Amino acid sequence: MTQTSKTSVLTGHRTLGWEAREIGDPGPHEVRVRVRRIGVCGSDVHYYTHGRIGNFVVKGPLVLGHEVSGVVDAVGEGVTRVKPGDRVALEPGVPCRRCTYCKTGAYNLCPDMTFMATPPVDGALSEYVTWPDDFVFPVPQSVSDDAAALLEPLAVGVWAIRKGDVRPGHSVAVLGAGPIGCTTIMAAKAAGATTIIAVDLEDFRLDLARQVGATHTFNACSGDALAFIRELCARRWGLPLSHGGVDVAFETAGSLPTTRLTIAAPKPGGVAVLVGLPADPEVSLDIVSAASREVTLRGVFRYANCYPAAVELVASGAVNLDALVTHRYSFDQTPEAFDFADREKKTSMKVMIDVS
Amino acid sequence: MTQTSKTSVLTGHRTLGWEAREIGDPGPHEVRVRVRRIGVCGSDVHYYTHGRIGNFVVKGPLVLGHEVSGVVDAVGEGVTRVKPGDRVALEPGVPCRRCTYCKTGAYNLCPDMTFMATPPVDGALSEYVTWPDDFVFPVPQSVSDDAAALLEPLAVGVWAIRKGDVRPGHSVAVLGAGPIGCTTIMAAKAAGATTIIAVDLEDFRLDLARQVGATHTFNACSGDALAFIRELCARRWGLPLSHGGVDVAFETAGSLPTTRLTIAAPKPGGVAVLVGLPADPEVSLDIVSAASREVTLRGVFRYANCYPAAVELVASGAVNLDALVTHRYSFDQTPEAFDFADREKKTSMKVMIDVS
Amino acid sequence: MTQTSKTSVLTGHRTLGWEAREIGDPGPHEVRVRVRRIGVCGSDVHYYTHGRIGNFVVKGPLVLGHEVSGVVDAVGEGVTRVKPGDRVALEPGVPCRRCTYCKTGAYNLCPDMTFMATPPVDGALSEYVTWPDDFVFPVPQSVSDDAAALLEPLAVGVWAIRKGDVRPGHSVAVLGAGPIGCTTIMAAKAAGATTIIAVDLEDFRLDLARQVGATHTFNACSGDALAFIRELCARRWGLPLSHGGVDVAFETAGSLPTTRLTIAAPKPGGVAVLVGLPADPEVSLDIVSAASREVTLRGVFRYANCYPAAVELVASGAVNLDALVTHRYSFDQTPEAFDFADREKKTSMKVMIDVS
Amino acid sequence: MTQTSKTSVLTGHRTLGWEAREIGDPGPHEVRVRVRRIGVCGSDVHYYTHGRIGNFVVKGPLVLGHEVSGVVDAVGEGVTRVKPGDRVALEPGVPCRRCTYCKTGAYNLCPDMTFMATPPVDGALSEYVTWPDDFVFPVPQSVSDDAAALLEPLAVGVWAIRKGDVRPGHSVAVLGAGPIGCTTIMAAKAAGATTIIAVDLEDFRLDLARQVGATHTFNACSGDALAFIRELCARRWGLPLSHGGVDVAFETAGSLPTTRLTIAAPKPGGVAVLVGLPADPEVSLDIVSAASREVTLRGVFRYANCYPAAVELVASGAVNLDALVTHRYSFDQTPEAFDFADREKKTSMKVMIDVS
Repeated sequence: MTQTSKTSVLTGHRTLGWEAREIGDPGPHEVRVRVRRIGVCGSDVHYYTHGRIGNFVVKGPLVLGHEVSGVVDAVGEGVTRVKPGDRVALEPGVPCRRCTYCKTGAYNLCPDMTFMATPPVDGALSEYVTWPDDFVFPVPQSVSDDAAALLEPLAVGVWAIRKGDVRPGHSVAVLGAGPIGCTTIMAAKAAGATTIIAVDLEDFRLDLARQVGATHTFNACSGDALAFIRELCARRWGLPLSHGGVDVAFETAGSLPTTRLTIAAPKPGGVAVLVGLPADPEVSLDIVSAASREVTLRGVFRYANCYPAAVELVASGAVNLDALVTHRYSFDQTPEAFDFADREKKTSMKVMIDVS
Repeated sequence: MTQTSKTSVLTGHRTLGWEAREIGDPGPHEVRVRVRRIGVCGSDVHYYTHGRIGNFVVKGPLVLGHEVSGVVDAVGEGVTRVKPGDRVALEPGVPCRRCTYCKTGAYNLCPDMTFMATPPVDGALSEYVTWPDDFVFPVPQSVSDDAAALLEPLAVGVWAIRKGDVRPGHSVAVLGAGPIGCTTIMAAKAAGATTIIAVDLEDFRLDLARQVGATHTFNACSGDALAFIRELCARRWGLPLSHGGVDVAFETAGSLPTTRLTIAAPKPGGVAVLVGLPADPEVSLDIVSAASREVTLRGVFRYANCYPAAVELVASGAVNLDALVTHRYSFDQTPEAFDFADREKKTSMKVMIDVS
Repeated sequence: MTQTSKTSVLTGHRTLGWEAREIGDPGPHEVRVRVRRIGVCGSDVHYYTHGRIGNFVVKGPLVLGHEVSGVVDAVGEGVTRVKPGDRVALEPGVPCRRCTYCKTGAYNLCPDMTFMATPPVDGALSEYVTWPDDFVFPVPQSVSDDAAALLEPLAVGVWAIRKGDVRPGHSVAVLGAGPIGCTTIMAAKAAGATTIIAVDLEDFRLDLARQVGATHTFNACSGDALAFIRELCARRWGLPLSHGGVDVAFETAGSLPTTRLTIAAPKPGGVAVLVGLPADPEVSLDIVSAASREVTLRGVFRYANCYPAAVELVASGAVNLDALVTHRYSFDQTPEAFDFADREKKTSMKVMIDVS
Repeated sequence: MTQTSKTSVLTGHRTLGWEAREIGDPGPHEVRVRVRRIGVCGSDVHYYTHGRIGNFVVKGPLVLGHEVSGVVDAVGEGVTRVKPGDRVALEPGVPCRRCTYCKTGAYNLCPDMTFMATPPVDGALSEYVTWPDDFVFPVPQSVSDDAAALLEPLAVGVWAIRKGDVRPGHSVAVLGAGPIGCTTIMAAKAAGATTIIAVDLEDFRLDLARQVGATHTFNACSGDALAFIRELCARRWGLPLSHGGVDVAFETAGSLPTTRLTIAAPKPGGVAVLVGLPADPEVSLDIVSAASREVTLRGVFRYANCYPAAVELVASGAVNLDALVTHRYSFDQTPEAFDFADREKKTSMKVMIDVS
């Protein structure tokens, strides 16, 4: 039975309107979901305020929102893994399933990826969404609706620690303590990192970082973060200061100074993971020093195969995503939610929209 | 200054005598340690009761004990990583440092390994022990003397989960819940395993296993452990029962039934890690089924490079080794400690000797 | 335009009949191929002579043949990677594309695999076959029709050396020198193995093994293969005889003695790859010795993502698959080809059927 | 018996003098070698012409030369792996054997490395050299004296392809076709790379590159090397041009343009290996594009555990190092050899000094 779905649509610069869209019955291997929560992501806000991110330009009406939880409303033919009434999270990117990247487990690099809220693909700020069943993940009662929506940024953190190969006993530095910095901290802690250094410019964020797993925090306004990191990790097991540094450093702030810091912070043989990226494509880096210390640099582009682990981490209590939600808005207040998220970057962590 | 060191020596079948040995000053890169704690290991007890383990035969007086903590008493030339008064743990195996195995990070396979309490190499059941500085690990105050001694069995657990490549969100089964089973559980939990199934024949051990991290326990007297494991892990993410099973299974009991179970328990593409080993070298196994499901079988022989991670895990509180100590004896009561450990296998976990 | 396709059909014990089947136009992302060559595989012969392999039982008419090359006849909507007239090889297994195994690059373990000539799925012993485009691989002129069909057993060899992680300078032993043994030798040589020991009971096979890359051959009728392997690989870089053995051993014969040899042949820390498997599921093995030397045992079930590499290896001249073809039959002689392959196992390597 | 060893010593800017040095008997685990060949490396020439490389400054007399082959003259106590008369190659760097890096197989990052011809450590331009036995590698007759000396740059190539994880069927680009570029090409070919693109500014070098394994060459004077690489590797298996690029790219020229090219050349998910490094530590790079395509950047600092594989590759004939020797000088002509190597960079590949 077709559903009418009230939908928030970006129709112009800082302009979110409403539409009633018809959503038909789910086809084979499809699931129709009654949306409950949408987390507001920095990329959503950026489309709202700037109309583009890099080469992705908003050219027509666009539905935002890609951090999604809900309840199964109807399922199509061949769907066995969920049934109506199941609480679920949606993985927002669906690849082609046929190319070399899809076949080798790197579907995040698929050239034909369909990703929610990335022009021209619509997101989920709507009452109903239909999605392929293999990107619909049932969650148990121990995972709240908010947490289910936030499995998306947690998936980024899980992918980041896989790229960094974080292992029990490791020391890590996380540059930037926004939502992605915090989910990276959570994932690193879950993987057994025992020294977790969070660096940011805002004490508000650093306090939250400590709450979700950072063992040390450093406000970069207050001094030399690199010296702090090296000093903390140096002289372990008799190694000289020259061999100080963390096992793995993560850039999550998308700025030039943090990118430079991320490359400098690892010990010889360590790893620097670039999760965020500076706006300017050309950046001046001391790549020579990093390479001669055999520090490996790895990029992160979304994630692949991280939702199952993310669900398990939250369901088991190893990770508490609810701690990240600092502000809430009703569906009707969606425009206010976006304005707030844009304005209060420094005093908010995650803004959640309740669509239920 | 030479020290006289009261030493417990295995001089015959179930016979531990005392000797006063002279221990000279530490040479270059050596550390002399005043011993505080020795954990009694199953292998120590086996030499005490049987005089041999496989090809290793006790032919002369032998000092037992290889789970060792203490305080630095004196250091030789060139030692910079510890100083007198530092509390330390000793890694009990010292390899040749020169062969291919030593050079490639697999020093546990070095053909010229010197390992404490393995005939003809003496162990540490003595007031003083001298050891190479790079196998002496300083521990912070948050690590108790007991825990420092138990870093040795924890190192086995850490090596086991490295061999099994346990990752956040994984499900694991640990067959056998003795000391090594428990340290494997601890290490698996630290690495992010969210489903940890312990199987044993003794409720006493299973209770302790749950205390240190098992999420599920199963007494194999009560039914079909394999069916329990497969049922628990099946039908995840829409997979059929045929694809049920854990990500990683660990054998720590050294029996034929648990070895067979360990090979059968992983999902297709999973890993079976053999930490313990059955006494009979020839065992009848369904290797065909395991191989056609692409289950990987990996053996564990001691460990390499695991002490640093083990120290970090205990120091950070991620692992609580003190929970394993169920019984304590003074140094003078060493023979009683061995008799007890031999007699009360089912009702004790770790027997600790206080040498301080 | 629908094609009539003359088809060889297994209709009973050792009975191959002929049918004219109608093959419609290819659907979206499908390719219709005019078959040119079919290699006869041991599994085809086994269905012909025994009607089953393990749990796979022939219950109705079955088309055999899964080593397939041909020319594109027609393409469906959305097909861009090949066009009519292109010479191609077909990868014979098509997975569900949706399950966890498919998404993580392990599609060979997909529970919903459709694999040619495995009951009840038909194979390719027919004039025309329709297949999904992403499992159709174009080959350049430097790859013959015969070689294109034999990319299938080469894919097994490529998967085997991936599982064994063969690297430049490695020593390997290949137990069994039939078609899969030979493609494993070819793949190992391409990966840089510099010592390649082939073991078999037939000099005919060993001669061919040497021709395709074996540096040493040993007829197991003539003495102790294990002693030969250990002696050859021992005392390298000063290691004692106890640490002799190859880096990687491969079982490709499917017998108990070779399975036991494969587990015993690797050096400490080496790898044993089980490509073939003994008929009896329960085998008595010295798993204890293997595990205590930290030899890893890995199974091989078909392959995943190996066709691209296999095409490159043949196209570049690194591997010469044509050397494996010892006998040829026309399509009309298909029954004779099967009888010959069954009868002359010891004097033939690969029997090829020319369907063009 | 002490040997008098005629030695070439760098005593000032472009000034090589002669000394007669006394070399005593080898100590425990030491080997005294009668030197036969010394290859002239770019770093030797740089110390000769500039007196420093980065932070390594020549402050006193220094013996150059670290690409060394010879014959064992005498062995110390405990040496079993070679005996007088054996032909050998010397691995020129000896680490501390005790630190975390040494213990984990990454001894090239040891903070206490002793490396020949790196101030203040003397090299091997002398008649006799004494060296630890575990860094002395016997070579069979199939390895010439020249080739034995050139195992050193081949070890760099082997380490580079390990860092890049080159596998059978891979495509690689090598930027710079000097000695290290050529040994990287050789190692990549040995590892199964089937497309090997060499880029340089000199046709002389490109011709040699093709001779040792490059399948394609491109003179960067003649056009856009990146477009050439992408075009060559694009549209494989149906991927769009955006996903063109090599599996692995290697920088071996140490220039900014080649560094930029190396980062841009890999396909999404590929690897860029920095073997050479630009002189200027701060370089402006499009790291954003590389990271968002998940290209991994890895540095190379010398090598670890590569000599065994290098010996095998040359001994088996897989690699022909003799092809690199373009010019020869006698020991007495050492100063002329250095002047020539400095002057004729564009028309010479490897200059070899015959010390025998």
